[in-house]
Amino acid sequence: MATSIGSIEKARCDARECKVALVGFGTVGKAVAGLLAARTHEHSLRLTHVFNRDICSKRVGWIGDDVQWTEDINDVLASDADIVVELMGGLHPAYEFVRRALLEGKSVVTANKQLMARYGSELMQLSREKRRVLAYGACVAGGVPVLSGLHEGLGGDRLYKLCGVLNGTCNYILTKLEREGVSFDQALDEAKQAGYAEADPTDDIDGYDARAKLVILARAGLNAEVNSEQVVCRSIRRLTKTDFEYAHQMGYTIRQISRAEVEDGVLYAAVEPALVPHDSPLAKLEGSQNLVVSTGEFGGETVFSGHGAGGNPTAVAVVSDLLHVVRSQAQLAMEPDRPRPRQYEVSSDFEAARYMRFVVRDAPGIIAALAGVLAKHELNIDSILQQPGHGKSALPFVVSLEPCRTASLDVALNEISRFEFLTEPPLSMPILA
Amino acid sequence: MATSIGSIEKARCDARECKVALVGFGTVGKAVAGLLAARTHEHSLRLTHVFNRDICSKRVGWIGDDVQWTEDINDVLASDADIVVELMGGLHPAYEFVRRALLEGKSVVTANKQLMARYGSELMQLSREKRRVLAYGACVAGGVPVLSGLHEGLGGDRLYKLCGVLNGTCNYILTKLEREGVSFDQALDEAKQAGYAEADPTDDIDGYDARAKLVILARAGLNAEVNSEQVVCRSIRRLTKTDFEYAHQMGYTIRQISRAEVEDGVLYAAVEPALVPHDSPLAKLEGSQNLVVSTGEFGGETVFSGHGAGGNPTAVAVVSDLLHVVRSQAQLAMEPDRPRPRQYEVSSDFEAARYMRFVVRDAPGIIAALAGVLAKHELNIDSILQQPGHGKSALPFVVSLEPCRTASLDVALNEISRFEFLTEPPLSMPILA
Repeated sequence: MATSIGSIEKARCDARECKVALVGFGTVGKAVAGLLAARTHEHSLRLTHVFNRDICSKRVGWIGDDVQWTEDINDVLASDADIVVELMGGLHPAYEFVRRALLEGKSVVTANKQLMARYGSELMQLSREKRRVLAYGACVAGGVPVLSGLHEGLGGDRLYKLCGVLNGTCNYILTKLEREGVSFDQALDEAKQAGYAEADPTDDIDGYDARAKLVILARAGLNAEVNSEQVVCRSIRRLTKTDFEYAHQMGYTIRQISRAEVEDGVLYAAVEPALVPHDSPLAKLEGSQNLVVSTGEFGGETVFSGHGAGGNPTAVAVVSDLLHVVRSQAQLAMEPDRPRPRQYEVSSDFEAARYMRFVVRDAPGIIAALAGVLAKHELNIDSILQQPGHGKSALPFVVSLEPCRTASLDVALNEISRFEFLTEPPLSMPILA
Repeated sequence: MATSIGSIEKARCDARECKVALVGFGTVGKAVAGLLAARTHEHSLRLTHVFNRDICSKRVGWIGDDVQWTEDINDVLASDADIVVELMGGLHPAYEFVRRALLEGKSVVTANKQLMARYGSELMQLSREKRRVLAYGACVAGGVPVLSGLHEGLGGDRLYKLCGVLNGTCNYILTKLEREGVSFDQALDEAKQAGYAEADPTDDIDGYDARAKLVILARAGLNAEVNSEQVVCRSIRRLTKTDFEYAHQMGYTIRQISRAEVEDGVLYAAVEPALVPHDSPLAKLEGSQNLVVSTGEFGGETVFSGHGAGGNPTAVAVVSDLLHVVRSQAQLAMEPDRPRPRQYEVSSDFEAARYMRFVVRDAPGIIAALAGVLAKHELNIDSILQQPGHGKSALPFVVSLEPCRTASLDVALNEISRFEFLTEPPLSMPILA
């Protein structure tokens, strides 16, 4: 398909063949190239360019000689490639590259969740103006087709709630804590050794990775535009095996849960460790599996789960998006305007039952003191649990509360944290029904 | 949008409004009309016609006066409706109506699984020729977006296996047997009283309903064209609480499982009761929930689950399909040819471990006799289980076998069934890993 650069028709895929440029040739890039090669007879996608730094060290023999390798993004942007696949990660220069590709009239497929969380609305708008497709199914939950599910299969419902386990690293660590009773640091070390955690695991364990995915999910499923910074993240760092013991005693386990829910014009959203019932699908995920439960006004709950990370599952999402682009190119001319995402007031002030774990130097009157503060703030105690076998100098026990708002609990906890009998700040988590 | 009948443009949806005719106004039809009314400000779909027998008894006040009610299908077919939604069920006259609608240049949305299993390929071909859309997401698993997931989100993978619980009635009955230890007939009666089973439950409990869904899934996910009649169905009628007791002892439960798997050019397919591990997602479904696990060469396992039946969940699937039609109308002109579904040799000769339950008049030498036949056919016994508490005149016990093919087992069972110590024919089920 030889077309003149600058023509409006340049980036429209021919019905028989669509030229694809890979920008970024790491684990996922390689897997995408492999999948394109393996399925080449079944589709009309042809790899024409690979962009990366230091291509000498990247070049592989199984990619044909007709593919151009380059370290200069301009080679890709000025080429006749129809679709640019952005797999670099990070905000910059990924943002500039994607923007320029759209301006050049190319469609874009990206697996970059930080990019889509931060600049997704702007880039979607640009793609609409340029009548091109920006597809990002690989940004959330890797190979789990949740974004296409929200757009396509559940497009007829009015969704109001999304809840999921979106970070495999946290799930791996929490499963280790739960099963092997190791310390958090030890579980983290093992996750690093097993290749499940980065050298700097902050993004994963403090919730920022899951938050970017939640922002993208909320936009796709709830039509809600949210700045990541508005969404509260709470770390899983403070969890110990004691918390799992208490949670089990109560019929629950603990997972890093990402939630977004629209109610009365407010978007409640948070990423935090939470107690989930043992028989919930959220409780049963293994390793890097991801799971999303969507709830709609008409269709009720729908569950999507599968491999959330890894080269091949993510490559499946990328190639599925490429096929979607091929199918979609022509329809842009007559697609009705989608409603623009709505800006919401964002709150993490969910109503939920609560788990509070205190560690105290034992002395008379502790429960009375705590109960007094809770009563003052109209927080109702549901149960008090104390396991045997701990010394009196650092005695853990758990108080569970009937459903209350985060805000009133935080005021009470702030007051409680001043008590001198506490050996560490109280830990609180929501208990999901 | 007033266009002349017969024009090629007649049935193309205007970007602002798409006219919808409902053919069939039962539970699902009413729910679709309700959903369209509730979301009217969010999309460009407008209900213009309702066809049903005896419309006087069907007419409802909350549907506006601008909607034409009719008992004559020609009123719909000759109208300017862009999309016909077929919700009559049954093969005839649904087939003729859908065919005529496509010939008239209308797109069609259907929730009719028997129609799509039997005539799906032909009708899809006709829709391509007429450059119209035939959407059928509501045919399988009601509101669970599995068909869109296979087409869209997993389009980039090469799927080779589908396994699921596709019939809510069977799941309800089996759950009753398992939990309450009632007889099959009693569970069936209660399912009828609760509205989960039809007066004639044959389609559900003997597997024909699930089989139609499996045929549609295999076409969508495995690109395999199968005649329903080629797929073996085994009934759940013979199961008793004893089978659940043995299954539990072995770490399993029993579900009606629909499976299709491509291996070496053969499509293995069956609908039958099977043992599934207690911790499998298949084991945990409640009531009318449906679940499908797809397995791909690149992305591994993906799980979809949700409400498989009911007016509102099915209506969500129908309206999602309507929105898909609106989006798709323009792209038909340049969509690359999809590979035509492949005709497969169909076999139910899965390799699997087996559960065999015998009921005998106790006497010496029974195990020896059975073991002799099994050994002759090179079937290896894995375990023999016998629970106490049964009389010697009708003593049940279970033999489990190491993985073997259905065909060799059937030969052995045929031979075994001639033994006079059996008080009923042996019952066998696959044990899924």
